[in-house]
Amino acid sequence: VQATLAYHFANPAEVLLLLEAAQTPNQIVRAEELVITPATSVTRFDDPASGERRLVFTAAGEVEINYSAKVEMRGMDHALAGLPASAVSALPAEALSYLLPSRYCPSDRLQAFVDGHFASGAGGDKVLAMIDWLRTNIAYRPGASDTQTTALDTFVDRAGVCRDFSHLAICFCRAAGIPARVVSAYAWRLDPPDMHAIVEVFLGGRWLLIDPTGRAPPEGLVRVAAGRDVGDVAFMTIFGETELRAQTFAVTELPS
Amino acid sequence: VQATLAYHFANPAEVLLLLEAAQTPNQIVRAEELVITPATSVTRFDDPASGERRLVFTAAGEVEINYSAKVEMRGMDHALAGLPASAVSALPAEALSYLLPSRYCPSDRLQAFVDGHFASGAGGDKVLAMIDWLRTNIAYRPGASDTQTTALDTFVDRAGVCRDFSHLAICFCRAAGIPARVVSAYAWRLDPPDMHAIVEVFLGGRWLLIDPTGRAPPEGLVRVAAGRDVGDVAFMTIFGETELRAQTFAVTELPS
Amino acid sequence: VQATLAYHFANPAEVLLLLEAAQTPNQIVRAEELVITPATSVTRFDDPASGERRLVFTAAGEVEINYSAKVEMRGMDHALAGLPASAVSALPAEALSYLLPSRYCPSDRLQAFVDGHFASGAGGDKVLAMIDWLRTNIAYRPGASDTQTTALDTFVDRAGVCRDFSHLAICFCRAAGIPARVVSAYAWRLDPPDMHAIVEVFLGGRWLLIDPTGRAPPEGLVRVAAGRDVGDVAFMTIFGETELRAQTFAVTELPS
Amino acid sequence: VQATLAYHFANPAEVLLLLEAAQTPNQIVRAEELVITPATSVTRFDDPASGERRLVFTAAGEVEINYSAKVEMRGMDHALAGLPASAVSALPAEALSYLLPSRYCPSDRLQAFVDGHFASGAGGDKVLAMIDWLRTNIAYRPGASDTQTTALDTFVDRAGVCRDFSHLAICFCRAAGIPARVVSAYAWRLDPPDMHAIVEVFLGGRWLLIDPTGRAPPEGLVRVAAGRDVGDVAFMTIFGETELRAQTFAVTELPS
Repeated sequence: VQATLAYHFANPAEVLLLLEAAQTPNQIVRAEELVITPATSVTRFDDPASGERRLVFTAAGEVEINYSAKVEMRGMDHALAGLPASAVSALPAEALSYLLPSRYCPSDRLQAFVDGHFASGAGGDKVLAMIDWLRTNIAYRPGASDTQTTALDTFVDRAGVCRDFSHLAICFCRAAGIPARVVSAYAWRLDPPDMHAIVEVFLGGRWLLIDPTGRAPPEGLVRVAAGRDVGDVAFMTIFGETELRAQTFAVTELPS
Repeated sequence: VQATLAYHFANPAEVLLLLEAAQTPNQIVRAEELVITPATSVTRFDDPASGERRLVFTAAGEVEINYSAKVEMRGMDHALAGLPASAVSALPAEALSYLLPSRYCPSDRLQAFVDGHFASGAGGDKVLAMIDWLRTNIAYRPGASDTQTTALDTFVDRAGVCRDFSHLAICFCRAAGIPARVVSAYAWRLDPPDMHAIVEVFLGGRWLLIDPTGRAPPEGLVRVAAGRDVGDVAFMTIFGETELRAQTFAVTELPS
Repeated sequence: VQATLAYHFANPAEVLLLLEAAQTPNQIVRAEELVITPATSVTRFDDPASGERRLVFTAAGEVEINYSAKVEMRGMDHALAGLPASAVSALPAEALSYLLPSRYCPSDRLQAFVDGHFASGAGGDKVLAMIDWLRTNIAYRPGASDTQTTALDTFVDRAGVCRDFSHLAICFCRAAGIPARVVSAYAWRLDPPDMHAIVEVFLGGRWLLIDPTGRAPPEGLVRVAAGRDVGDVAFMTIFGETELRAQTFAVTELPS
Repeated sequence: VQATLAYHFANPAEVLLLLEAAQTPNQIVRAEELVITPATSVTRFDDPASGERRLVFTAAGEVEINYSAKVEMRGMDHALAGLPASAVSALPAEALSYLLPSRYCPSDRLQAFVDGHFASGAGGDKVLAMIDWLRTNIAYRPGASDTQTTALDTFVDRAGVCRDFSHLAICFCRAAGIPARVVSAYAWRLDPPDMHAIVEVFLGGRWLLIDPTGRAPPEGLVRVAAGRDVGDVAFMTIFGETELRAQTFAVTELPS
């Protein structure tokens, strides 16, 4: 995986960077390099439990960030069919907050719709029905949304990109009592190449990755971080103002 | 502190209860009793780090919940004046998410307003200016909001109750780079008696409680839980449908 | 038809009253009486073209308004099946604005949904499909909405009252290129008795009344006024503050 | 004044064109030419009362519209200071609807803000205070809004373009009981050249034009049409889909 970001900061600003591939049992980072130009000191906020790696630094003037990593992917199961949902009482504590509404996923508002449209089925089968609904009813259209667009807007406007498909899928799952969160990822064969927003649902006692848009092969998704919605997992959160110069993302398959 | 809740559940539903006084160094629970009628098994999700205590149970038919506790309050400092804000890089990891937007606190939308109106001052002084603005510009009016009301609605409509004052205060702080979260609490001398939503800000290296409405004395606030907004700290989150029968809250000062 | 309204005005305020039965070829007002207590001078804004009758007066203190009228209803056709829609170029000029979005009917936002869900059929048959969709997907629930609720909220929340059914029906029609407007009316056999919000669509060269909720018999609807949405046809628009004391509405069938 | 529009229509669609300079006592159209290529029949909806001229035609394939006109402008008074507002009862009937909320101007929501911030002064002086507030608190920023942006969004986000300044000014006026409407206009010396959205308020017994952005000299504003907000006066309303190829607007001063 490879990412290059270039920004201009007219005034110095702190930047929270969430760009590095997570270290998990299913995803082994074999080699990596993160270069921030000009060189600057960083403060790390790595989380051993999730394998997520955040860092904060102060940016000023022209700043370029280059990240590249070789990541070994272990086979993960993505099959939802037949998986049971858990009772709330049987969930791990960390899953509870993923049942609740968030900035872009006001799942409480879609309760009646979910009760009405996805009444039959349960667990993984219900989630598959939701994904099917999304692919039938929401058009994938670049430019259909911006940083203010919530899942309710997408539900009304019937068009969006990966963040919007994910937010609406998350609303549906939470309203059905299934914990769901967004995952930011590098995505192999995504066209055009970009950071991808996908979804993780808690079913059958574990978290499973799904891509509501169906645009990237699940085995090529290199996870960065999970959050309640994309507001939590932006690859850059800037406390101040900036101007984008350029950004590129690439994922290449290496021989195993 | 004392709370009585009575609900009717036409169909069995799981209930997440977040009603018990937190156990913290500043707030010692000396005695307490939680009685759910009819008796039912509960699953606890207590968090030693925060002292917060959640539990989940299945409710059916007529359900009554009685909670009472004797809580010893240690003196806490609530003075904001002169307290410095922390750089993002100097924050504890758990404070980072309280800089980001949430369901009822889309702080990103109010960035320009906060940059314009609260440009002068810093840290605690800036927060005091925000509280002052709220008390001048927002009318406290019971019934002005409902469960869908966000801080943006309150900013437009200029009226709200404790949840709305708190949500707008939180937006202002986050937009200014100051971590802020909502705290649910029992409130001594709040009139009429009710659960109270207040705010905690991270300044001078620690979390400080403030009541944006100014309606309850800070020394009489008995903390239950903290979250990104009230969606996270509802005293009951019901996964299904219910009908409220009655609820009462009371806080009495005992001789020390 | 009979209406009684009682309000308290702490400060004098101008009131626009739109309460009288319209005078139209299909609806002959045989006798009527409008009494405002205390007596006050009124300025009338009657519109001969539509038969609508507005008046403005200044209210202060305790004000009671009593209106009663005997209205002879001519048979009107309400059958939509098979009626053709008109090309825009063939519409009367006054119908054009009823193709455009309004306060509570932002029909532009529902364009994609309408294009997708109501692609087949045309004219009256398409409108019948829309009404059918509304009755299947939106629950009639008193208290589900307030004065800020737009058709988009209703589309998301899937519940509403007569104003909400009407607003969503109007959005659907406008997005399909069919002029649609709201009509305020006295409604025979509506339970509980209240002013009713219904819809008028332009099909087959004329305006036809429909009740998207199906709660009142169409032959017993006594028209007051038409507008782009309920914001235009409130029976009282108050330029200032007031407090409601009581209001009752009644419609009785007299022998012909 | 001169306008050139080029669009591509993959499928035939009816188009409502509202591009011609209005014919009013203060604005005499001395010569004009409207050419639609390829030639097509049009249906006119001219309104003698307002001097506004709409037309509808069916567009297919590549369509170009060229409009040019020589317009003689009579001096109009734009001075607001000291002008009295009218009681509602003293308004002309056509002004009443401009007191009510509309698609982009939900003036009801800003009632409390207007009551609080613009309590002093009246009539033209109050409107001047509103304009002053807008220029101080809202940044003019191209790209800050899109076709869904309402005055409430602008009030929250504190940035916009001419349509947004106008919508917020209109909300303020209506909430203060002053009829206000949007006017689309050709604007001399507007940089960059574009159709302009300005505001007309009813004060001192007549409609007065104001430009809330202050970006175009009022004596060089050539009026096209008035409406409740820009949804009513778009220069093209397309009942179907289209793709923009190019559009240019120009206003040149000729020797008198």
